[in-house]
Amino acid sequence: MIHNVRRLLFAPPYLYPFPTDMPASPLDILALAAHRDDVEQTCGGTLLKMAQLGHRTGILDLTQGEMGTRGNAKDRAREAEDAAKILCTSWRQALDIPDGRVENTWENRLKVVRVLRQQRPRVVILPYWKGRHPDHYTASVLGYEACFLAGLAKLDVGVDLNVAAGDSPAIVIPNVERASPSPRAGRPQDIRQDAGATGLLPHRPFKIIYATLYYDVRPTFVVDITEQFEARFQALMAYKSQFSDQEAGKGIFPARDEIRSRIESMARFYGMLGGITYAEPFIQKEVGLVEDLTLIPVKSI
Amino acid sequence: MIHNVRRLLFAPPYLYPFPTDMPASPLDILALAAHRDDVEQTCGGTLLKMAQLGHRTGILDLTQGEMGTRGNAKDRAREAEDAAKILCTSWRQALDIPDGRVENTWENRLKVVRVLRQQRPRVVILPYWKGRHPDHYTASVLGYEACFLAGLAKLDVGVDLNVAAGDSPAIVIPNVERASPSPRAGRPQDIRQDAGATGLLPHRPFKIIYATLYYDVRPTFVVDITEQFEARFQALMAYKSQFSDQEAGKGIFPARDEIRSRIESMARFYGMLGGITYAEPFIQKEVGLVEDLTLIPVKSI
Amino acid sequence: MIHNVRRLLFAPPYLYPFPTDMPASPLDILALAAHRDDVEQTCGGTLLKMAQLGHRTGILDLTQGEMGTRGNAKDRAREAEDAAKILCTSWRQALDIPDGRVENTWENRLKVVRVLRQQRPRVVILPYWKGRHPDHYTASVLGYEACFLAGLAKLDVGVDLNVAAGDSPAIVIPNVERASPSPRAGRPQDIRQDAGATGLLPHRPFKIIYATLYYDVRPTFVVDITEQFEARFQALMAYKSQFSDQEAGKGIFPARDEIRSRIESMARFYGMLGGITYAEPFIQKEVGLVEDLTLIPVKSI
Amino acid sequence: MIHNVRRLLFAPPYLYPFPTDMPASPLDILALAAHRDDVEQTCGGTLLKMAQLGHRTGILDLTQGEMGTRGNAKDRAREAEDAAKILCTSWRQALDIPDGRVENTWENRLKVVRVLRQQRPRVVILPYWKGRHPDHYTASVLGYEACFLAGLAKLDVGVDLNVAAGDSPAIVIPNVERASPSPRAGRPQDIRQDAGATGLLPHRPFKIIYATLYYDVRPTFVVDITEQFEARFQALMAYKSQFSDQEAGKGIFPARDEIRSRIESMARFYGMLGGITYAEPFIQKEVGLVEDLTLIPVKSI
Amino acid sequence: MIHNVRRLLFAPPYLYPFPTDMPASPLDILALAAHRDDVEQTCGGTLLKMAQLGHRTGILDLTQGEMGTRGNAKDRAREAEDAAKILCTSWRQALDIPDGRVENTWENRLKVVRVLRQQRPRVVILPYWKGRHPDHYTASVLGYEACFLAGLAKLDVGVDLNVAAGDSPAIVIPNVERASPSPRAGRPQDIRQDAGATGLLPHRPFKIIYATLYYDVRPTFVVDITEQFEARFQALMAYKSQFSDQEAGKGIFPARDEIRSRIESMARFYGMLGGITYAEPFIQKEVGLVEDLTLIPVKSI
Amino acid sequence: MIHNVRRLLFAPPYLYPFPTDMPASPLDILALAAHRDDVEQTCGGTLLKMAQLGHRTGILDLTQGEMGTRGNAKDRAREAEDAAKILCTSWRQALDIPDGRVENTWENRLKVVRVLRQQRPRVVILPYWKGRHPDHYTASVLGYEACFLAGLAKLDVGVDLNVAAGDSPAIVIPNVERASPSPRAGRPQDIRQDAGATGLLPHRPFKIIYATLYYDVRPTFVVDITEQFEARFQALMAYKSQFSDQEAGKGIFPARDEIRSRIESMARFYGMLGGITYAEPFIQKEVGLVEDLTLIPVKSI
Repeated sequence: MIHNVRRLLFAPPYLYPFPTDMPASPLDILALAAHRDDVEQTCGGTLLKMAQLGHRTGILDLTQGEMGTRGNAKDRAREAEDAAKILCTSWRQALDIPDGRVENTWENRLKVVRVLRQQRPRVVILPYWKGRHPDHYTASVLGYEACFLAGLAKLDVGVDLNVAAGDSPAIVIPNVERASPSPRAGRPQDIRQDAGATGLLPHRPFKIIYATLYYDVRPTFVVDITEQFEARFQALMAYKSQFSDQEAGKGIFPARDEIRSRIESMARFYGMLGGITYAEPFIQKEVGLVEDLTLIPVKSI
Repeated sequence: MIHNVRRLLFAPPYLYPFPTDMPASPLDILALAAHRDDVEQTCGGTLLKMAQLGHRTGILDLTQGEMGTRGNAKDRAREAEDAAKILCTSWRQALDIPDGRVENTWENRLKVVRVLRQQRPRVVILPYWKGRHPDHYTASVLGYEACFLAGLAKLDVGVDLNVAAGDSPAIVIPNVERASPSPRAGRPQDIRQDAGATGLLPHRPFKIIYATLYYDVRPTFVVDITEQFEARFQALMAYKSQFSDQEAGKGIFPARDEIRSRIESMARFYGMLGGITYAEPFIQKEVGLVEDLTLIPVKSI
Repeated sequence: MIHNVRRLLFAPPYLYPFPTDMPASPLDILALAAHRDDVEQTCGGTLLKMAQLGHRTGILDLTQGEMGTRGNAKDRAREAEDAAKILCTSWRQALDIPDGRVENTWENRLKVVRVLRQQRPRVVILPYWKGRHPDHYTASVLGYEACFLAGLAKLDVGVDLNVAAGDSPAIVIPNVERASPSPRAGRPQDIRQDAGATGLLPHRPFKIIYATLYYDVRPTFVVDITEQFEARFQALMAYKSQFSDQEAGKGIFPARDEIRSRIESMARFYGMLGGITYAEPFIQKEVGLVEDLTLIPVKSI
Repeated sequence: MIHNVRRLLFAPPYLYPFPTDMPASPLDILALAAHRDDVEQTCGGTLLKMAQLGHRTGILDLTQGEMGTRGNAKDRAREAEDAAKILCTSWRQALDIPDGRVENTWENRLKVVRVLRQQRPRVVILPYWKGRHPDHYTASVLGYEACFLAGLAKLDVGVDLNVAAGDSPAIVIPNVERASPSPRAGRPQDIRQDAGATGLLPHRPFKIIYATLYYDVRPTFVVDITEQFEARFQALMAYKSQFSDQEAGKGIFPARDEIRSRIESMARFYGMLGGITYAEPFIQKEVGLVEDLTLIPVKSI
Repeated sequence: MIHNVRRLLFAPPYLYPFPTDMPASPLDILALAAHRDDVEQTCGGTLLKMAQLGHRTGILDLTQGEMGTRGNAKDRAREAEDAAKILCTSWRQALDIPDGRVENTWENRLKVVRVLRQQRPRVVILPYWKGRHPDHYTASVLGYEACFLAGLAKLDVGVDLNVAAGDSPAIVIPNVERASPSPRAGRPQDIRQDAGATGLLPHRPFKIIYATLYYDVRPTFVVDITEQFEARFQALMAYKSQFSDQEAGKGIFPARDEIRSRIESMARFYGMLGGITYAEPFIQKEVGLVEDLTLIPVKSI
Repeated sequence: MIHNVRRLLFAPPYLYPFPTDMPASPLDILALAAHRDDVEQTCGGTLLKMAQLGHRTGILDLTQGEMGTRGNAKDRAREAEDAAKILCTSWRQALDIPDGRVENTWENRLKVVRVLRQQRPRVVILPYWKGRHPDHYTASVLGYEACFLAGLAKLDVGVDLNVAAGDSPAIVIPNVERASPSPRAGRPQDIRQDAGATGLLPHRPFKIIYATLYYDVRPTFVVDITEQFEARFQALMAYKSQFSDQEAGKGIFPARDEIRSRIESMARFYGMLGGITYAEPFIQKEVGLVEDLTLIPVKSI
């Protein structure tokens, strides 16, 4: 106990949760991806775990999934809302960037900048910058550059709070159950609302990490999702238009079993890297910073 | 607070400080290096910081430094003791492996195994496995293989507690001041003594990390030594036979200033990587394991 | 048969199975590893598949496993024989190199050279050259250098056909069932026997590949073991002294289930890389050589 | 023949030449490059070899070469046709993307998508994604993303069969001699024509590989072009406007000799990597998949 | 002079300063960067050193810095002129590309092509192709592709000598003191002026190198700037609107000292890599070419 | 001339040819390799070029080649002498380390240390540290560690000037023609002789580089050997016992032609990397240090 108090008193500045000259942030973590159901596959367990730790989490889907072989954008919007509830996500929205044509243009960057300035996340999860689907790797660069631009004081992106005003309003999930209230719950929400009224204040996330599950690359770190694995699988299964049709065509259980087997094997593989059961993999570009050598996890030998 | 309590109650097994089926470990951290004054240069600040956090730290020098251009083994033994005190190290010893001829033989491995089984460290710091000095990179492989062997239950290495019985007995530094008693202080020391009486029980360190300051390689993480930088420099200066002769020959201040400038620049360079002032760099082979994304340090952007 | 004739008539020279100035080789493939049960874990499915294709396969264990926590060398010898039968291996032997002390000495290299000259494999599977266990990575270098030495015409290693004459004679598995006779069945066995009578003739394997399952590295290629996965798991379970004791201690089903889950996840992970179900990963140092672009497997996109 | 029947009966699913739900593909292999004469330099020998194996091959040049220092687009069109005949190519076309300004725009991607859906190649050869000429590396990304888009069922790119309707109609080379009829010769061509009549059906190539000869990178594999080397050199020499002017200026033989020496040395260098005489180098992103270890070519030692 | 004559007589062809069919180049070295003050931070010492060796150096800033948190474009233009004088730069200009929005468009490439054809540098220094600020890494690709395009004989970019005709005319620094006149001083300036009058002749720089100080990557080589370090720091301090405001806000000396400490540590770190005191790091893509092994600098051991 | 004076007056310390506290060095460059004829293949052209520049060059063969398939140690000694003359080498010697069994033992290291202290080279060329032949890569590590040990002041290796006293005395090539006398010709040879009389003084080479031609790795730099290519090929052909037998067996011209073709293609390949005709490739571990950007060779674009 005393040890922990000392830590709080003497911790170096880089451990403070937020710079003191920034308004409060309504989202602790924002995951950005190209398509609805990408986040569920690459970092859904982590998002749920963070929500269970008391953090406010959000998902920004760049497209509305209209190019998917099965279903349509409307179906996927409803399914995405269901999945968001399972993952205890506080906020979810889809931009109107065309599916199959995510491009790193100035206009698209500004669309993401507006979301970042409104939702003000401390941590942003992006797709990895290599991959099979061009939308995925382009979303990574687009997301990164938007994070950079969002912090430029002289960049004015207007006051409009509605990012995509069409048929995909931001989903606000009302009764998410979390293990404990967010540690930042006491921060004045009105500051942000003022910010909204007078224009979107600059904001730059403290941390950007990359979800690498779609790509065979060695992660910097993994997150233990053993407790969240089942819920995360349910979140993926919420995309019924994707998986039920498929089941209908090929016999319902084998297809679902095959999907589950693959997802489980991936999670186990990364879990084994970390000496645990199920995990999701991430890369960060920065070096790590360790405060106490005896607390570094993962057995060496 | 509640958050922290929850962590202790629910944390997954890999976060427990020690496997419950192992006897208590008298050292939390052991740094191994080829020559006296290597540890002072590569991870002295980190060792001091760990001691200040309440951990018991130790240093194992493989050789006695008899091939150094200046001074002799006796001088260096006295200086090493002085440096160990400055770094608040609880234990230091030099093996009798010939300086300039550190070889990864079975006999040398067993010498290190005996130390590991006696001192039972949770964390071992080794030199990086590449470098300019053959003793350094060979010490890295030798140290790693000894860590592996030390855990083999069927490997019997006898009961002798004195590693190198000659003129370099283990230094026991009596009155090291630490900020707080070790969190493991209450563990029964007699268990280890029994172990000694009945033979050295197997032991495998939980974590092996590599100090990379001697080599230009990107570290996995750095440790903030801003508060420890001055003491670490004093620990290096304790090797008077190395640095005073030099000063005498070339004018005392310039030489000392040049050394200090280089050491400071290295520490600052690695500090900048971590967004802090002074740091020491390390590599770990394992992937990381992150419990809470919002607590990852080092700003991304 | 017709298939093979066509190959001999039209294939370019580098595809000829064997240099014409070498005697026939009784083994098509030899897997070398440090410990009994290593081969079962890293390439057992591949060995079985090759036997089912009609090839003669063999296993050389460098040590007799006397340092294993559970069981003893005698138990393991019997278990290794059982596992070899399950994998349809034609030949298996253990050298007398001490467990935990595999060293790349001249003597050890010669022991392996003798085996290579007797068994004359076309393909040798070695452990990967990095790893957690020093015996594994040392076995890789030792095996490679023995392959090189085995081909030196002027290196005389005597005529003794018994490699380790003690209590581990070569296991000859009598009634292995294979899908078809080896395509090399017609080659004159007596040539080799003459070679044995007059000294061991030089031999250099055509191909050396590295089994990487113990290490997280991207493989050059994988081998589909979907059909062999169950038998390979049974081969591993044949090491009852390793796995039954463990089961006894911790409840029999969970432990076995956990082992199976891990092995299955690894196999699935590498299977997914190749677009199949279960696979084992390998690295080759050489570049590939492709005869027909339309026959390259594994979908790109 | 028997060989092929066995393959179809027993081969695992990933070895089937084509997904059964796709119409027949008129091209087996399509090589895409930025400029006329690029393909001749990087993979001309491989294209010829594939044609000699009975495959239908094609070349898509993105530009018409109007920025080349010597000659003009009209000359180069005629020369490209000559080169295509030498390489026994079944189809060749040049798009109207400006030379020196190959950009990865939506419009350019669609131009390539139309070609892919018309020609429906199983294998696509792209330039490597790094290089000296911006057109080369941009063509690589543009080609990859077009391959991805071409497979999206909901992407409609119209019915127009003429890609670039201007002065560069698709070259149809009438009397190409091939060693044997294409194994797919019996497939109903009318299926494709129907597809053309009702719109271009989605198509995704099974395999994408990258020709790396322009860049000093270690290839994944090489293709033996010893038998094709002379014809490939003639195909390059067909670009008389490029090489004759140069010869005129500097004395005809030295220049031609110098070009030949360089091309021969490159081919030999990659040949030596594969243990053969002349070769062309390629990279694939996927891991390999090996069915029989004893058939892996290229000697290890 | 004598030295130069000898070089022309005996040097191998690749050492010739310029292709003989190109007009004289008024700039020996041009550094291109996204923002005013970038060059000062990454390669200012090198530019000054080159000027002191007698070379004509220039700086092209792509933007006018209007997005900087402090100051405005006009202030920065004046400060950039001051810094250019301190670095003895012969020419400096800022394009009108928007700050924070450097994009690799055709238009932007042509803007840079015009500068390259006017200034005709032998060496171009670009930012490294990875980095934190999107403007930096995009400037790297934009600059590279412009260097390529500038050499295309058939690309006509007009005759206008004024690149950005607005409020940022090219700075011509009148009385730069250099240690000696440029070795190319005798070349006819009028040739270039003629070129201007009749259109901008094609030009391709002989050498492109990348300044890597903003990114933690191992350099190919470093340049010793021990003698230039102070002046380079003064050049950076010439940006008063950047650094004075900051000082005003936080107490003047600590801020300036902190900046100096960081810059000094970086310079020292790279200096240590080269065995010298202060250095700036660079990458070149090409392999090196060494004429005399005994003249290779930097001690190995 | 004037240029050179300026260099000596103003050049930074690291460019001085030799530390002032070291005795004169009789060899400028020493190439070390495992077998006679290795040096001829990997860096023979460079050695000849250095001799033609006026440097004293030497070759140390670790073994006497008794395991070669053809010829014997006596033949190879005579051939090595012939080759050394062709390469204008001043000194050549073979140690008595067994062929096929080059091991990095203390004894072998001391054998090399004695040579280094006698011959005192400024530059040492070692084989690359990876390769096909174990003798090659072991020679690399052995040579590096000997270079390190040779500089340890307290390491006494006796006064014996004859390294291998048996049937392979040092070859002293009397009448080597060099373009000019060595620039170090005026240094007092007697200093070295005194050193010999009183024991071998410590010596550490300034530069260690690695000849990489045997391994497919990208070099740090190449050396232009266009003028030396023919002589280097003759030096290799001096090993008649290697190449004549082969010719006898297979018809004399084709074999020789094939060898020449391979060697020429390798030399051309590396030449093309450097923009020249023939070259040999090398790696250095250190970063480069460039004095004048306008003198960096090898065109970028």
